[in-house]
Amino acid sequence: MSISLYAPLDMHLHLRDGEMLRRVAPLSARHFAGALIMPNLIPPVSTKEDIVNYRTRIIQSIGDETFMPYMTLFFKPTYTKEFLQSVRDEITAIKLYPAGITTNSEGGVSGFDIDTLRPPLQAMSDLGIPLCIHGETGGFVMDREAEFVPIYEKLAAHFPKLKIIMEHITTKESVAALDRFDNLYATITLHHLIITLDDVAGGMLQPHLFCKPIAKRPEDRAALLKVALAAHPKVMFGSDSAPHPKESKECPGCAAGVFTAPIALQMLAELFIQNNAPLEHLQHFISANAQQIYGITPPDKEVVLLQKEFTIPQNYEGVVPMSAGEKLSWSINPAI
Amino acid sequence: MSISLYAPLDMHLHLRDGEMLRRVAPLSARHFAGALIMPNLIPPVSTKEDIVNYRTRIIQSIGDETFMPYMTLFFKPTYTKEFLQSVRDEITAIKLYPAGITTNSEGGVSGFDIDTLRPPLQAMSDLGIPLCIHGETGGFVMDREAEFVPIYEKLAAHFPKLKIIMEHITTKESVAALDRFDNLYATITLHHLIITLDDVAGGMLQPHLFCKPIAKRPEDRAALLKVALAAHPKVMFGSDSAPHPKESKECPGCAAGVFTAPIALQMLAELFIQNNAPLEHLQHFISANAQQIYGITPPDKEVVLLQKEFTIPQNYEGVVPMSAGEKLSWSINPAI
Repeated sequence: MSISLYAPLDMHLHLRDGEMLRRVAPLSARHFAGALIMPNLIPPVSTKEDIVNYRTRIIQSIGDETFMPYMTLFFKPTYTKEFLQSVRDEITAIKLYPAGITTNSEGGVSGFDIDTLRPPLQAMSDLGIPLCIHGETGGFVMDREAEFVPIYEKLAAHFPKLKIIMEHITTKESVAALDRFDNLYATITLHHLIITLDDVAGGMLQPHLFCKPIAKRPEDRAALLKVALAAHPKVMFGSDSAPHPKESKECPGCAAGVFTAPIALQMLAELFIQNNAPLEHLQHFISANAQQIYGITPPDKEVVLLQKEFTIPQNYEGVVPMSAGEKLSWSINPAI
Repeated sequence: MSISLYAPLDMHLHLRDGEMLRRVAPLSARHFAGALIMPNLIPPVSTKEDIVNYRTRIIQSIGDETFMPYMTLFFKPTYTKEFLQSVRDEITAIKLYPAGITTNSEGGVSGFDIDTLRPPLQAMSDLGIPLCIHGETGGFVMDREAEFVPIYEKLAAHFPKLKIIMEHITTKESVAALDRFDNLYATITLHHLIITLDDVAGGMLQPHLFCKPIAKRPEDRAALLKVALAAHPKVMFGSDSAPHPKESKECPGCAAGVFTAPIALQMLAELFIQNNAPLEHLQHFISANAQQIYGITPPDKEVVLLQKEFTIPQNYEGVVPMSAGEKLSWSINPAI
């Protein structure tokens, strides 16, 4: 038995830069037709030159694969309409980080004052540039995302024509918000469909499952699974695959991020099948919904999954993937 | 300025065995007049011979220090009254672990059927042996302790003369239960008075703050602090200091436990002073309450804390303490 997926898209991907980019970009490029590339480099991607150069470095890293890097800009409240017009054709979205909330987000937004944010957000709305948001407050770790929902809703209400994507949602509160505003969308990761805080810290502590937003409660995972398996038209797959060297994960002060890029499609196929979801829902979740929401046409690419045992490698050049060493019943040939 | 504490007691301590016992026992013996020694060795301490031999190994490890190891037995539902009578003079309490809930607890209790537990618990009640319980269910990690409160209450109601100590409580629900039953008591650790889940996983992941029960929410810590600082007569200090080699903490599958024995008194003094709690409350929390609850008279020992900066060592022979490298404003001479 095999499953053929058309033009899989990963709508939230960290490719990093330099040596790490060289290691991980080919892995995403093998399995996906394209990905929305996060801009939180050091320094963040925030000029036209940054975007063009980063795209070039990505393309150089992926070799012969057919793979479209959909570029994003790191949101700054100071962006003018003229600047945004000048970069419009280079980017697919702009990513907003609350200041200091996750890896390399120090230059992000503090406070969400509408008057301060109006010039760039109105310009984005006028230019049709979607706004991707890492929606967490500085509150208690289990409450941060739910506390951010009113901010999503305030932005959605003030800029009704701006497409706002709630990135890597992890809570039932975010799922509920999807249906309250026409212009709210969401990405969901693989790991948040599978794990809860119990998997991170309920038995032994598992640093390779530690990420931001942290995995939440069983009822949150259930809410995410429900909309993903149903291929809710406002949700898209975004892996938030976030590579860190093993040494930065297995230490005090372990970095946040789960590395899933090379195993995501295989595990998603398994998840949809185990839950008796139609495979066309998987196709929508990993490509069609994103095409519709972003108005993008990915390059032609077919990825075939075979029902053949695949053991997840212990690491990819020193980057440990989720579920390292576990066996999956679906694989992509040749296995990476 | 100095603070003189009389006969500090640590009413929940893991000393381990073998090489680790040799490393950590002298550290507790330097600062404390005695400690209640947990029995979860491999295999657990469950015979008279086990107790006598383990006490001997502990005393051999502490050298010249004045230090009383108050021994405990690992609870088994099969203990008979005759057996309990025969060990009565060797032990201070019996420790009950739900099966598989924490480090080395595989041989613990499954289910809390009163009829099954009645013979040993009635015998303990008759013989005046307190029952210490690690109170967590197998539920979601943030709910496990609160879910266990009805079991504490069921046991307290069925055995009204049995002293039941809720060990290392971490939630407002357990604090509230203290005042509902005359025969419910509690120990509180240093770390649960200081940290919440935010400190473990809200920023970078901190494996040396990972323990069971896991640190909870700010309102839980506030409830614990309130009864500790007030020296509620039913609460006692129990460090739950749980040493693991650095390699077992900084890895996938990180072991649960926070090592605090050598820094506990200094940090408690700082905590009580910062919160403007009377120092006599500290004296009650770290000794007088335990003497009253357990009916024990610790050996004469005075421990003097000096207002003098102390930098917490990075590790004690490969065991990393809480807050390694941080500076405290209270020290005990000579510093260890």
